[in-house]
Amino acid sequence: MPDSRDTGLALDPKYDAAGLLTAVCTDAATGELLMVAHMNEDALRLTRETGEAHFWSRSRGRLWKKGETTGNVLCVRDIRIDCDQDALWLIVEPQGPACHTGARSCFYRRIEGNSLARVA
Amino acid sequence: MPDSRDTGLALDPKYDAAGLLTAVCTDAATGELLMVAHMNEDALRLTRETGEAHFWSRSRGRLWKKGETTGNVLCVRDIRIDCDQDALWLIVEPQGPACHTGARSCFYRRIEGNSLARVA
Repeated sequence: MPDSRDTGLALDPKYDAAGLLTAVCTDAATGELLMVAHMNEDALRLTRETGEAHFWSRSRGRLWKKGETTGNVLCVRDIRIDCDQDALWLIVEPQGPACHTGARSCFYRRIEGNSLARVA
Repeated sequence: MPDSRDTGLALDPKYDAAGLLTAVCTDAATGELLMVAHMNEDALRLTRETGEAHFWSRSRGRLWKKGETTGNVLCVRDIRIDCDQDALWLIVEPQGPACHTGARSCFYRRIEGNSLARVA
């Protein structure tokens, strides 16, 4: 049977061994998947307090605000959580390209055979 | 500078220490975020060979086909990969509810204060 974390109405995030949740960001206007990143408890708190997406960088080992250097912040309109409370859905208004390559979305390539093809 | 994994057209998935990629599934018809799961190399291969989403279950420690017992499979229409090639975007046609609770999407609750509210 699903337990209360799955079906209840208490916020009870299930952080992984590294203290992280997966965070999926989509564009509030278009629905497009923009990026996937990770949040620790501080990143989630700061995101909720400021309305701007904060994440934990696994490669740099530090908290960061998306767009802190580029200005391409993500204004968060809604946050949803999945059934087992280990993943978040951030519905955002991006203030610029989400991807560090300059693409609107980090998912700008489709898998085709053993290659990739640009789709945006 | 972004390296070729970020900007090139070679498929070069960056599996994590556990051999996994994050896989984000959205509904091809509505754009709704349905679920987030994980794929190892076998899950990705089987997904591409069969056109039906396969994942690696971290809790059960085994490969599984989404819907193998319920019939609620996810027919995969497109697979995209993100800039650092550690996350996949599966654009799918769900054959039933994606969530084990019976909800259409696993993300059926919004965070409101310290509680959750159903949105679907």
